[in-house]
Amino acid sequence: MSKAQMIEELMKALGREKVITEPEDLICYSFDATADMPSKLPDVVVVPGNTEEVVRIINIARQFKTPVYPRGSGTNLSGGTIPIQGGIVLSLQGMNRIVEIDADNLVALVQPGVVIQDLNNAVASFGLIYPPDPGTVATATMGGSVSECSGGLRGLKYGVTKHYVMGIEVVLADGTTARFGGKTVKNVTAYDMVKLFTGAEGTLGIITEITVKLIPAPEAKKAMLATFDNLSDAGDSVTEIVRSKVIPATMEIMDQVTIRTVENFAKVGLPTDVEAVLLIEVDGIPEVVQREADTVIKVIEKNNGKIKVAKDDQERDGLWAARRAALPALAQVKPTTVLEDATVPRSRLTDMLVALQQIAKKYNLQIGTFGHAGDGNLHPTILTDARDTEEMKRVHQAVDEIFKVALELGGTISGEHGIGMAKAKYLPLEFGEQGVEVMRKIKRALDPENLLNPGKMLS
Amino acid sequence: MSKAQMIEELMKALGREKVITEPEDLICYSFDATADMPSKLPDVVVVPGNTEEVVRIINIARQFKTPVYPRGSGTNLSGGTIPIQGGIVLSLQGMNRIVEIDADNLVALVQPGVVIQDLNNAVASFGLIYPPDPGTVATATMGGSVSECSGGLRGLKYGVTKHYVMGIEVVLADGTTARFGGKTVKNVTAYDMVKLFTGAEGTLGIITEITVKLIPAPEAKKAMLATFDNLSDAGDSVTEIVRSKVIPATMEIMDQVTIRTVENFAKVGLPTDVEAVLLIEVDGIPEVVQREADTVIKVIEKNNGKIKVAKDDQERDGLWAARRAALPALAQVKPTTVLEDATVPRSRLTDMLVALQQIAKKYNLQIGTFGHAGDGNLHPTILTDARDTEEMKRVHQAVDEIFKVALELGGTISGEHGIGMAKAKYLPLEFGEQGVEVMRKIKRALDPENLLNPGKMLS
Repeated sequence: MSKAQMIEELMKALGREKVITEPEDLICYSFDATADMPSKLPDVVVVPGNTEEVVRIINIARQFKTPVYPRGSGTNLSGGTIPIQGGIVLSLQGMNRIVEIDADNLVALVQPGVVIQDLNNAVASFGLIYPPDPGTVATATMGGSVSECSGGLRGLKYGVTKHYVMGIEVVLADGTTARFGGKTVKNVTAYDMVKLFTGAEGTLGIITEITVKLIPAPEAKKAMLATFDNLSDAGDSVTEIVRSKVIPATMEIMDQVTIRTVENFAKVGLPTDVEAVLLIEVDGIPEVVQREADTVIKVIEKNNGKIKVAKDDQERDGLWAARRAALPALAQVKPTTVLEDATVPRSRLTDMLVALQQIAKKYNLQIGTFGHAGDGNLHPTILTDARDTEEMKRVHQAVDEIFKVALELGGTISGEHGIGMAKAKYLPLEFGEQGVEVMRKIKRALDPENLLNPGKMLS
Repeated sequence: MSKAQMIEELMKALGREKVITEPEDLICYSFDATADMPSKLPDVVVVPGNTEEVVRIINIARQFKTPVYPRGSGTNLSGGTIPIQGGIVLSLQGMNRIVEIDADNLVALVQPGVVIQDLNNAVASFGLIYPPDPGTVATATMGGSVSECSGGLRGLKYGVTKHYVMGIEVVLADGTTARFGGKTVKNVTAYDMVKLFTGAEGTLGIITEITVKLIPAPEAKKAMLATFDNLSDAGDSVTEIVRSKVIPATMEIMDQVTIRTVENFAKVGLPTDVEAVLLIEVDGIPEVVQREADTVIKVIEKNNGKIKVAKDDQERDGLWAARRAALPALAQVKPTTVLEDATVPRSRLTDMLVALQQIAKKYNLQIGTFGHAGDGNLHPTILTDARDTEEMKRVHQAVDEIFKVALELGGTISGEHGIGMAKAKYLPLEFGEQGVEVMRKIKRALDPENLLNPGKMLS
């Protein structure tokens, strides 16, 4: 059976307008936001409009034994959506309806193609928020962020995507559809399939509807910028703030390489002579915000930091603009930006920061580190050039060492970016072969023909 | 190969003192806290002291093709720990060490036999709490509550067990050991196996170590008792309190049958002429507590309720003693207490309460309902006598109807008690055959010989 036949079947099943075959269009689906990854043209891209059409696509894929690569906006950072074996890219962007906002139960029901920011805009009028906020919140889809279990800046206080997914509808590799979870706060009915599919990176099924938890928006916020002449003082402050029983909504760090690059790029007024800055935001009702801010200031000053509190919304927005500029600023320094995702227990943050400085020196690489200090979730970012094969060799050695150190410190190889193609080879380091084998058994049980996102995670 | 041989092997592997064979001892392991369930004597009970011994037990069970029934304190309410096919009961009570309290990372590492309350006592000196609090907190073990994914009174604000399990060590059906998760706040490294094993009721592996998240203890608390002449007003108040952006730590309901029984049993001063009471507690820093209490009072009064705020700790303790008396009080009315666990989206609480009254009338049964109103998690409790076969028939019909209604209202068949033997037959009602089949595939993949807790959940 030929590709042409399969495409013909897809057109019959969905209508011609939902089947993309022009080579110049297919190129857009041959890569994603991940650097230093191969690209691959899919045979065809399909854009179903509902669950029934997803079922038809899966059944055609089974018939033609063709891989299916589910995709939202392709903003993931681990090569998760690259159609590395060709076949069908299944774009969920056509299923982008907010089905229901149920404010009384603090839940929303969305199709997978809804952009995260659009959901937040829609629930804002109810005084509610959907907390997970990856950097790509304005473009990433709900389906993609659930499949990748996105993190973001508010993980410390509010948790990550998996803490908000309450229910899913999923189309399985055998073409059947199932629903798990729902609107109840509590649910222990058999295995927690909602959590299994969340973060499964599209390897176990295609998520076609999502029920998420919402929470009341905090009434007040206060943002602060702390500067340190010594990297360890910044790391120690993070641990001590939490030890003081203050859980900030956000606690972000930028090292000197990042600060200087951001300032050079965006001219936001960051002090370029310091070793590190922390950006801290506390939120809640005004009384809480004031108390927590006072505690934060005391801890920072005790640890030799200087602190500046944003006077108003404009200053607050300025601070966050600086943080959001970190990645684009670093990305313009060199042609290739290898953004990593090493995560350690919060108390080992200083050790990891110091280790990253040593690794940069050892391999003679430019590494800017920023990230979610409160979560111990750092993004060491190697500024390089994929065409420089000698330097890339050192880059790969440095990455290997970064993960080795993260694991030695009791951390994980991925805090929020997932495994995809980028980190598959490190899995046994974290779980041992036995642990990986448990996951392989689950994959084989649910997708015995390896049709769903093959070449990723466990391959 | 005989049972005697197997017992001999177990004694060789563990030492005689860890192998229980006396019939009068085995009886204690033949049932659990669930009413209206068959009991069954195991062939042997083993009490391993460490993970290596658990591995040896599993390997012997494989060799003799004998079922293994993991067990903590046996307090579960769905027949989850009954050794219904005989074989080996694997008691985790011998592994009861708190391995580490890591206050800087807000985590604790425990063995499965640690009693929940003992963990809370140990972390209290750090100003921390482990929030999941099933009614059996003083006897239930961490391993049992993780395997059952226990809920409790604080689910609305603080979530349930699965929201606190960060890492596990597990011995699998093939005798291998694996570790998943750990101390990092964020972790998206491949499938979320921690969540899969949490709530798997011992059917996928034996959990031998657990890393849990802790949170700072709230500084202040305020408990309130609201009384209502009309059941719907109580239900509506629950919805409106959350709509007012107040998320109480606890929001419990008791209906008239329960109130009268509790008062008769414990003489705690509850008003016996009202249709329902709500017990509400808000917590946090004092300013928040005051504000939230004011909002709660306003909502209750608007919905025709009368409210009494506990003046001091003694009055507060009195209110909670009344709530905790609900189940023991109901249980002494009749010989058999069929405690159910129907859960609906919070906004459907009033509908469910009314339906329960109608079901009691229709089947001419005495049903007392109490539960976690804020979670939509009700415990309709049928007071009956297992020896009265005619009445038990009506009890079973009523239970069937309770779950049918809960599902029709968008709910689930188990909010917090799990499936075990008690609810296995209802699974297809919630998931359809496709959904159940997905779970069966996972069970078969990880436990192909059906050695772990057979006869439960998916059997």
